[in-house]
Parts: sequence; structure tokens; C-alpha cells
Amino acid sequence: MLVVMEAGARPEEIEAVVRHIERIGLRAHTIPGAQRTAIGITGNRGAVDPAVIENFSGVKEVIPVSHSYKLVSREAKPDDSIINVGGVDVGGNGIIVVGGPCAVESYDQTRTIAERIKRGGGQLFRGGAYKPRTSPYSFQGLEEKGLEILARVREEFDLPIVTEAIDHESLALVDQYADCIQIGARNMQNFSLLKAAGRARKPVLLKRGMSATLDELLLSAEYIMSEGNYNVMLCERGVRTFSDHTRNTVDLSIVPAVKRISHLPILVDPSHGTGKRNKVVPMSRASIAVGADGVLVEVHHKPEEALSDGPQALLPDTFDQLVREVDAIARVLGRALQPALAAS
Amino acid sequence: MLVVMEAGARPEEIEAVVRHIERIGLRAHTIPGAQRTAIGITGNRGAVDPAVIENFSGVKEVIPVSHSYKLVSREAKPDDSIINVGGVDVGGNGIIVVGGPCAVESYDQTRTIAERIKRGGGQLFRGGAYKPRTSPYSFQGLEEKGLEILARVREEFDLPIVTEAIDHESLALVDQYADCIQIGARNMQNFSLLKAAGRARKPVLLKRGMSATLDELLLSAEYIMSEGNYNVMLCERGVRTFSDHTRNTVDLSIVPAVKRISHLPILVDPSHGTGKRNKVVPMSRASIAVGADGVLVEVHHKPEEALSDGPQALLPDTFDQLVREVDAIARVLGRALQPALAAS
Amino acid sequence: MLVVMEAGARPEEIEAVVRHIERIGLRAHTIPGAQRTAIGITGNRGAVDPAVIENFSGVKEVIPVSHSYKLVSREAKPDDSIINVGGVDVGGNGIIVVGGPCAVESYDQTRTIAERIKRGGGQLFRGGAYKPRTSPYSFQGLEEKGLEILARVREEFDLPIVTEAIDHESLALVDQYADCIQIGARNMQNFSLLKAAGRARKPVLLKRGMSATLDELLLSAEYIMSEGNYNVMLCERGVRTFSDHTRNTVDLSIVPAVKRISHLPILVDPSHGTGKRNKVVPMSRASIAVGADGVLVEVHHKPEEALSDGPQALLPDTFDQLVREVDAIARVLGRALQPALAAS
Amino acid sequence: MLVVMEAGARPEEIEAVVRHIERIGLRAHTIPGAQRTAIGITGNRGAVDPAVIENFSGVKEVIPVSHSYKLVSREAKPDDSIINVGGVDVGGNGIIVVGGPCAVESYDQTRTIAERIKRGGGQLFRGGAYKPRTSPYSFQGLEEKGLEILARVREEFDLPIVTEAIDHESLALVDQYADCIQIGARNMQNFSLLKAAGRARKPVLLKRGMSATLDELLLSAEYIMSEGNYNVMLCERGVRTFSDHTRNTVDLSIVPAVKRISHLPILVDPSHGTGKRNKVVPMSRASIAVGADGVLVEVHHKPEEALSDGPQALLPDTFDQLVREVDAIARVLGRALQPALAAS
Repeated sequence: MLVVMEAGARPEEIEAVVRHIERIGLRAHTIPGAQRTAIGITGNRGAVDPAVIENFSGVKEVIPVSHSYKLVSREAKPDDSIINVGGVDVGGNGIIVVGGPCAVESYDQTRTIAERIKRGGGQLFRGGAYKPRTSPYSFQGLEEKGLEILARVREEFDLPIVTEAIDHESLALVDQYADCIQIGARNMQNFSLLKAAGRARKPVLLKRGMSATLDELLLSAEYIMSEGNYNVMLCERGVRTFSDHTRNTVDLSIVPAVKRISHLPILVDPSHGTGKRNKVVPMSRASIAVGADGVLVEVHHKPEEALSDGPQALLPDTFDQLVREVDAIARVLGRALQPALAAS
Repeated sequence: MLVVMEAGARPEEIEAVVRHIERIGLRAHTIPGAQRTAIGITGNRGAVDPAVIENFSGVKEVIPVSHSYKLVSREAKPDDSIINVGGVDVGGNGIIVVGGPCAVESYDQTRTIAERIKRGGGQLFRGGAYKPRTSPYSFQGLEEKGLEILARVREEFDLPIVTEAIDHESLALVDQYADCIQIGARNMQNFSLLKAAGRARKPVLLKRGMSATLDELLLSAEYIMSEGNYNVMLCERGVRTFSDHTRNTVDLSIVPAVKRISHLPILVDPSHGTGKRNKVVPMSRASIAVGADGVLVEVHHKPEEALSDGPQALLPDTFDQLVREVDAIARVLGRALQPALAAS
Repeated sequence: MLVVMEAGARPEEIEAVVRHIERIGLRAHTIPGAQRTAIGITGNRGAVDPAVIENFSGVKEVIPVSHSYKLVSREAKPDDSIINVGGVDVGGNGIIVVGGPCAVESYDQTRTIAERIKRGGGQLFRGGAYKPRTSPYSFQGLEEKGLEILARVREEFDLPIVTEAIDHESLALVDQYADCIQIGARNMQNFSLLKAAGRARKPVLLKRGMSATLDELLLSAEYIMSEGNYNVMLCERGVRTFSDHTRNTVDLSIVPAVKRISHLPILVDPSHGTGKRNKVVPMSRASIAVGADGVLVEVHHKPEEALSDGPQALLPDTFDQLVREVDAIARVLGRALQPALAAS
Repeated sequence: MLVVMEAGARPEEIEAVVRHIERIGLRAHTIPGAQRTAIGITGNRGAVDPAVIENFSGVKEVIPVSHSYKLVSREAKPDDSIINVGGVDVGGNGIIVVGGPCAVESYDQTRTIAERIKRGGGQLFRGGAYKPRTSPYSFQGLEEKGLEILARVREEFDLPIVTEAIDHESLALVDQYADCIQIGARNMQNFSLLKAAGRARKPVLLKRGMSATLDELLLSAEYIMSEGNYNVMLCERGVRTFSDHTRNTVDLSIVPAVKRISHLPILVDPSHGTGKRNKVVPMSRASIAVGADGVLVEVHHKPEEALSDGPQALLPDTFDQLVREVDAIARVLGRALQPALAAS
């Protein structure tokens, strides 16, 4: 259930509604918007009588919500959410490019690539310290040492860090070292991890599962938000189909579909989505053309030596071209690449 | 097997190779290119001795082809094919927009929409006279009467016509009335129909089947070309997956994949691909951004009254916006919308 | 719309209803059942007034049908259809095994295999004279010569013949030479061919398309029945999914799903469904255990020399084992293998 | 790499090889078999020189393993694994039926159903205390209280307990209270949880992910085994496809595929696989017919009141029928239902 407050509702009116909801054993989620504040009500125990809440001062309307996502929906918050990731805005009128290696392999490798991402015009840096790998015998990441490398590189280049957490333990560390917690496709329905991400302080980048529907993706975001972390960004990274010319099938039409029913930003990851270097630039252009808020791509200066996913990593020069092209496409839609943070 | 002729090979040298191939019971397909001519050899009976053919005057190289498509491949013809559809070039540096109703319903409806397609900047007109419908009790099209309407409208607006053939009988009529024969997704592996299309005079627009791989799509194009009709255009129209927020899942990465291994043009049909009006403009922009040679969209002036597929048809005003946006996107890639034919 | 006649309705009462339906420009399909006769009404033009028909003598009830299939549904005919294929009953309490090579290659090959099918306990013989092949350069079948071989072998062994038609021309010949017309997966939505099959005299075996839903399969059967041929059998042969350990994914749960809503028999083809010889026997057992009316398997005495699909063909000895095992499974369900026709 | 010992190798010979492997920084997994012992070598650091190991006394052969799973493979252990779950053998010649409610709702509900499972002939009892639910607002299980109920019911009926763990915390509790730890489909690639399960004492039932390939399923089992827990059972529970007549598409051919390359037992869960009560009995019969080692089904005495997944739960009387039918099918294959544990 959603409580929509009047445009001019005073803080103490909002507070009174929240207190009432909590008193009857439910959770209240205050969602401030440009025009008005909404309050989402969640919780299993008991029902709410809309008539009681409609009587509170400053309440405009009480909306019963039929589908199971509430906080992610545009009914709860009509205007686009803009998420601040270490000083960079994601969503809104700007678009962003997140670049970096699949895995953090060493300080030198990470620094070399970060320098090229910054110079090429990327806003955020990505790199895996914890790698979910299909085989137990594949390289699993440098773990905390990888996070330390990322944090050091961030200081040097003023590039906020996005990196994946794979369980409660790594989540706590990622929350501490990085600027954005990535939940990978394989963990999109690891509900215990989603709840923990909902109690973290940093924004969350939630990747679509390999066979997740739009509803399931939104409900996984709802898990995070229902615990109190409203800074959620979605990411399309391809779904699994019979089609075998790319590793996954990138489902770009989910971008306008998300924009219609949710206020959350959505990025696209064409590197994992296609698994093929030569598809990354065209699919990045297409992602921005369809309305995504940015792209997430893998870059490696020596892809043939990469410890994981080399064949899909771009060379730094191709990254530069990608940034120029997505900016040009964004301008056709009245948007533009966000400026990167000034080096400190 | 492919015979690649020297850049300066003379017509009589080419002719000599062709005669030899035919003498040993095989078919020769002469494929002229900008730089050089190639000759594809097809046929089941017997093997060819490469050494014999390499001895012919003017022959540069004989390439055994390992995958089963030959004539569609860039090995056979390195430069992009440009297909002339009633005076409009498809492929090459220009992009095109094909618009029109799902089904031809009446002269008035068709004329009204064609007038808007022409005015809005579309190069080709589409409309079904033969409709493959899932249920035997749904409207199946006006058949030959529909073709007459299309032909009449073409004369009025100088809009070449693309329309679907569903069997040998309708193919003969479409070949006679229209400018381009469409083979629909459900018939992509109707090999008997493909062969008949290979013997027709008009270019063929071949749509990808709902669960066709890239290889299967190319092999279906090969069926048409192996019968002698080299004017084939491909069309991505969405594949069937678990993803349920659109009717099909548009697999845009097939566009750069086709461009890499084939010289044939490829269009995208976001109307059937998504089945939702509000996804057609964003997916059209993405199609051009990814490198497609054009888009095919459904337009209806009264979509709520359309006899088939109303919910996915654009209103004419939205069509105008679509043409402007895809042209702007094309210009980022150094391409541009083809000029429409001048009204006669 | 369905008209259900009283249990004791007289032929002239049924005839009167049929005449009325035809007089108002629609088609009447008389569907005799064990208990009562139903009359399906199909056609595009105009609506029927149920009240008028309810007034006819002998009419028990008029049922508006909401989903688009009518004649295939159990509402139209509550008891299972039993289809007579050249003297062998398909459906009902017996189960059948259809065996034979993927393609008819020669009289000797066909005769050798047929002899083993008969001896092993198979009821029907299958073998392709027209082969829909993905590549234009693959063996396409012996065509009419293949049909002649099949007919000759039928006479020798009293094994009725099931073979595929791929277009109008081959359909006419298959209807003449064989006992059952197979429509393959790739043609499941070749509606022009389905209509032609609906006008043929022989029963039709309709295979599920590679990405067809249950509804689409039933509607394709409805196409055939709506033209007047009520002798339709369905066949599950695997659908296309991401799962790569078999060629297709056999969807056995469609068998009880079909049985619930349709009166038509359904077979399973585990040879094409899995594409792997060692999966054919276990999946045949499972097919009968789930309730199918029979299985269709490929058998070849020299699979390594087969001109098509060798890797999935069973050796004759394994065929014998398969027949024994499916019979034993059928007996658990109170069914049993049909006796084969006595050799003449 | 796999070291295969001679049939008569002595314990101290085996021990010597193990010590060598560990000395060079790798892990040795001793896999005793009926005929011979194999030693799997895993670990990331450095390579092993096969020649060195071949020189050890009692070593028959050293096999380099090309695919990434080792411990799960028949190369490592040629004979079928039989897993002891609280006294009940899973795998081998017997088959088993695991029954119980989707979720543990109360002691009374659990006891009532357990009594019927025992009486009906089930060997193991299932019931969720931790429920991974798509929506954060759905019932999430009774958690530890649910485990206490399960443990109490086990004592009463001598029915070993299978129940799901969803994170490290619940895993520790399930390992303590239950007889078998279930890892659900959504966590099949939660590698952190798999590793924890590999360090638990109880056997693990690993369900196939919704879009997992056979290789991925085996590699997830390998994660568990590579940590030292060799008691792993697999479970097919349907994959996600376009096919919409059941909730998932049960891919039964994975059963013979697993049996070919792995020694692990495999069960089938037709309740989640189809999501429809009326498909559970036929698909259970088919599962046993195809060669599965058992089935896992949901049973509820009042399915219309169940807090989760009511529509797929069987009534107890139907469960009795299921047990009788799968036993009869098993006997056709020379197998039979395992006897249940005698009540204490």
C-alpha cells in the first residue's frame, strides 16, 4: 500500500503517518519526490485500513498496490531516481560509462587500466575482487587484497569504484572499500544477500539474472529497498536463450520497459551480454539509443593475458572510441555524457 | 567451393570457368564484386578438383568452404551487397524506413497510411495481403485484391511495395504485383518456398524464424541464392524466449554478427519484435545504432480498429518522429536516411 | 461455437442443424462421439444466434467457445479420438511404435530396415522421401522414387507408411502413396500446407514446431480439422532451449496437457527430440510412462552410413529392446502395445 | 588430473601418493570404488608432472582430465555412488520417494503430512523452513522453529529430513537439525554457499538452476566435492523456456546424460518442474522410467490453505497412488522402491 502525501505536506504530518504505520507493526518507507512525498507500507503482519490513514492531515490519497513490487514503482515515486555513486550521478539527464578489467589481477594492471579509463572519459571504475566462477578450479579473485588495490587506484584517479560482493562477508568489505556494491547475475535471487545489501550504506548495482523476468528483477530490487537502501541501479547483461552467436542474448527492450514502470536507473553490460569484443561498441551505442542511463564495459590493456574473460575485453583505444560514440548518440536524445570527477 | 578470379580477369576467362563447372554437372554462381569476381560452386554430385580449376586463366585462388553457406558469405563477396528494391537502394551507406499497416484492409485505409509514410519520409511501403495467422478463424488477408490495392497505391505515391508470400501460388502473384517478396518468420525453413523465391525475379526480404540460429538464417538465405536470386535482405524480428515483457526478444547483436560474415543487408522489425507500440521508437533507434540497414515498422492511422496486430502499430505522428530520430542516429555513424523516390 | 446434440438425437435432427448453419454462410463440422454428437461451427462471416439453434429439435446445449481452438477440444468431443492408419488404430487403449530410417535411401536399405521393424514388433513404418534440410547442399530425399519404395515395402510387410510432405506437390503424392501424411516441425505453421492437409484423404501426423506453444500446436491441428480432415495425431519432438546436452529439449509434460484439453492422440519422437542414440530408449520409456499413445523412432542397420541423422538412429537390436520395454511400461498403466497387422 | 590405483593397491601406497600431492601444494581427493581407488587432484597452483606420480608404487594410470569437472565424473569413480541419508540409501538399485509440504507451517500440519508420507511409502520427508521467495513480502518460512518441528517429526516417524539452506547461517542450522541439506535452484551458482556445503557433514541435494546447463550443474556439484563433501545428489526441477503450459519445462533427458558421465545419483522434482498438480503423477512415472533414482514431490492435506505453492501439492491419496505407480515402473527396469526405515 502506498500513501501519497499532499504536495505541501509538512514534515511533522509525514512523521505522524510513519509513526502510525510503525505502531501497528508495519514498516514505513518515506520516498521523497520532486512534487510530493510518498510512503510505502510493507510487512506481513495484518492489514491496514486505508480509511484510517486517509484521515491523517496532509494525506492526499491511499493507493492499494496490486503487483508485489511497490518501492521500485513509478506509482511510489513518479520522477526518475538519480543515484550518487561516490560523487557521480547515475540516472537523470546524463549518461555514464563504467569501465575496467573483469578481474583485479595486480596493482600495476589495475592502475594501467584505470589511467586509460579516466583519460578516455569514463566516470566509474569496475573490477572484480571476488569472482563467481563456474568452475571451482578457476581464478576466484584477489579478495580483500583486490579491494585494497581498487581503493588505492580510486584515490589516484578520482574514479569511484563498482565491485561485486558474493556473500555476507565480502559484502561488508565491499561496503567499506568501494563506492558501489555490485550484485551479480548469479546472485540476483540470493535473497539473503539482497537483504544484506539493503542494510549496507553504499548504492547497489543489481544485475539481471540469466533467466530472470522483468518482474523478478524488480522484485529483487524491492528486496534491497524494503530493507531501507533506496539507492539501487539495475543492469541488463543478457539472458540465456537458444541463440548461439553471442554468449547471451542482450534484451535491450527491457530498458524502455523498466523506464515505464520504475523510477530506477538502468545500465547495460554489453561485455558480458555478448561475450565478444567486436560486439561491445555497436551494442553500447544501441544501449544508449534505446534509453539506458549508461554502459558497463570490460577493458584490458592485454586482453590475451587476462585471467578471466579476456575475449570480451576492449582495448583502451576502442574504449576511447566507445565513449565518443555513446556521447554522440546521447546528444541525439537530448542527453550527454556526465563529466568525470575532476582529479583531486 | 569458391573460385576467386584475378582483379583484372576478362569476361571470357570467367565464362570459361563457369562452362567447366557446368560441364561436370555442378552449378556455377557468378558473384561480381567491386574488386574481383568470385564464382561459387554448388551441387551434390561429385567433387571438384581444385587443381584443375586453378589452372584456368584468370583464376587467383580456389577456396574450399568449410561451413555450409557459401554464396551469402563475405568470402564469396567481400563488399556489402546493395539491393535495388523498385528504385530504392537497401544496404550500403544509406538507411531506410519501411512503413505500413500490418494488413491491407481496404483501398482507403491503405492509401491514407501510404500518404503518411511518404510524407513522413519512408522509402518503402509494407502491408500484408496474405496473413499467416495462428488461428484458422482469424482474418487471413484480402489476397490478390490486397495486392491490387498495394500496386495502385504504389503508383500514386511512388512507394515500392514489400509484401509477404505464403506459398507457391501467392509467391507468383507477389512477384508480379510487388517490388519485394517477404518470406515471413514462420516460413523461414519452408525450403520449398525458399527455392521458389530463388527463382523469382524480385528481391526477397527473409525474416528470421522465431527460434532460428544465425547459421540457420544464413542457410535459408543460401537456399534462395543457390537457385539464382542473389537479391536477398535479412530481417531480425525477435526470437522466442522466456522473457515476457515483450512479445518476442529482439536480438540486436545479430546485426554486427551478420555484417561480419555476410555481405547481405539486414533490417530490423521492432514492431513484431516487441509487440508493443511504446517500444518501437526506442528499438528503432537502437537498431540503427547497432548498424542495421533500416527498420520495418507497422503504422496505422486507427490502430484500435486494425484487423490484426493493432497494439503494435504506430500512429503516423510517431512515425514522423521515428524517421527523424533514426536519421539523426545514422548520421552519428556517418550514414544517413536514403532519399525517398521523387513522386512521379 | 459448439452445438451439443441430445444422446438420442436422430440423424435427420443433426442434418437439420447442419443445413441451417450452412445456409447462414458458416461451416458445420459434425463430430460423432460415443455418447452424443457435437457440431462445431466455424467461419469468419457473421455471428450465430445461439437462441435460434437451441430451438432446433434434438439440441441439448449450445456452448460459446472462448479459446480459438474448437474442433480439437474435449468440449467438442469428450472421448478420445482413435485414428485408423492403414488398419492400425492410434489412440485409445493401445500404444504403437513407429520405426524406420530418417531417409529412404534405396530399396535394399528400406526393405532391410522394414523387415526388422516388423519382426521387432513395430506397427507403422516411417521414412523420409522429402527431407527438409537446413542446408541446400544436403541430401534432400529421393522424392517420388522414395514414395514408390515405401509403397512397395508396405505391400511386402503389411506395414502402413508414415512419411513427410513439404509442399502442396509432395502432399498430393504422399496422400496417394502413403497411409499417413507427416507435417514436420518446420512446417507446423505453414498454414497453406495445413489447409491442403485438411483437404487430403489420409490421416495427418502433425509435429510440434521447435518453438511452438501448446496453444499454437492445437491451433495448427485446428487448421487441418477446419478443412474437414478430422484424423489428426500430434507429435512432441523436442523444443529449442538453451539446454545443450541434447539437440532439443523433449517437453514430456505436454502429453498430459494435451490429453486434458484435446481428444487427439499424441506420440513422442525421442530420436529428433534428443538427437542422441543412447537417449532414445530411456526417453521412449518415459514417453509411454507419461501417457503418450506411442513413439516414433529412427532405426538404421548401418547408422554410420546413413545419409542423414545417423547419430540418432537405433540399431535393430536396440529397437527390439525398446519395443519390449515400452510394452512393459504400458502394461503398468493398463495399456499394451497394439498387435501389428498380420502379414498378408 | 586423476590418479588411478591398481585394484590391489595397499592403503600405505595410496597414502604415499596423497602425501606427495599435498606436499606440492595441491589437494588430493581419495575416491574409493568397488574395483579400485582413484585420487583426484585439484588446486590452482602449479602443474603436476604425471611421470613423477606414475612412478609411485601401486599406481596404474594417470589421466589428464580435459573438462573442468573431475570428482563428479565416472572417470574418477566408475561405479554409481550410493548416498546414505539418515539411514536411507539413495542411488544404486533402489528408488526413493521424498514427500512433504512446500513449507513447514506448524507442528500439526507437518505431523499430519509426515504421517501420510510414512504410511504411503515415502522414504524421506521434505519441508521448507527457509523459503526463497521471489517477493520480499511473501511468507519466508518459520526458520529455526521450522527446523525444530522437522526434527521432532523425524523422531516420531523415523523419516529422515531434507530441507533447504539459503545462506551460511541457515546452512549451519540445517546441517545440525536435518539429514540432508538442499541447495535450491536459485542458489545453484551461489558458490560461497556451495563451498560451505562442501564443509558440512550432511549429504547435499543440489537442484539444477533454472537456466543451468548440464556442465554447470556438474561444476556446482564439483564445488561441493572439491571441499571434501562427496555425498552429493543432483535434482532436475525443470528449466525456464518459452513453453507456457507448465511453470517450467522438465528436461528428463538430463537423467541418462548425467548417468553417462557422472556417478552421482539424480532425482527429479516434478512438483516445481510443472507447477501443476495433475502433471505430478505422470511426470513421476516418466522420471523413474527414464532412469532417475527417485522423485521429490509436494504433498499437502489441505493444498488450498497452503502458505506457498498450493496448486502443485498432491493430496495424500494421490501420493499413495504415485508411490504404487513408480514402484511398478521401477520393477520394469529391474529396480524397486527402497523399503522405508522401520519405525523405531
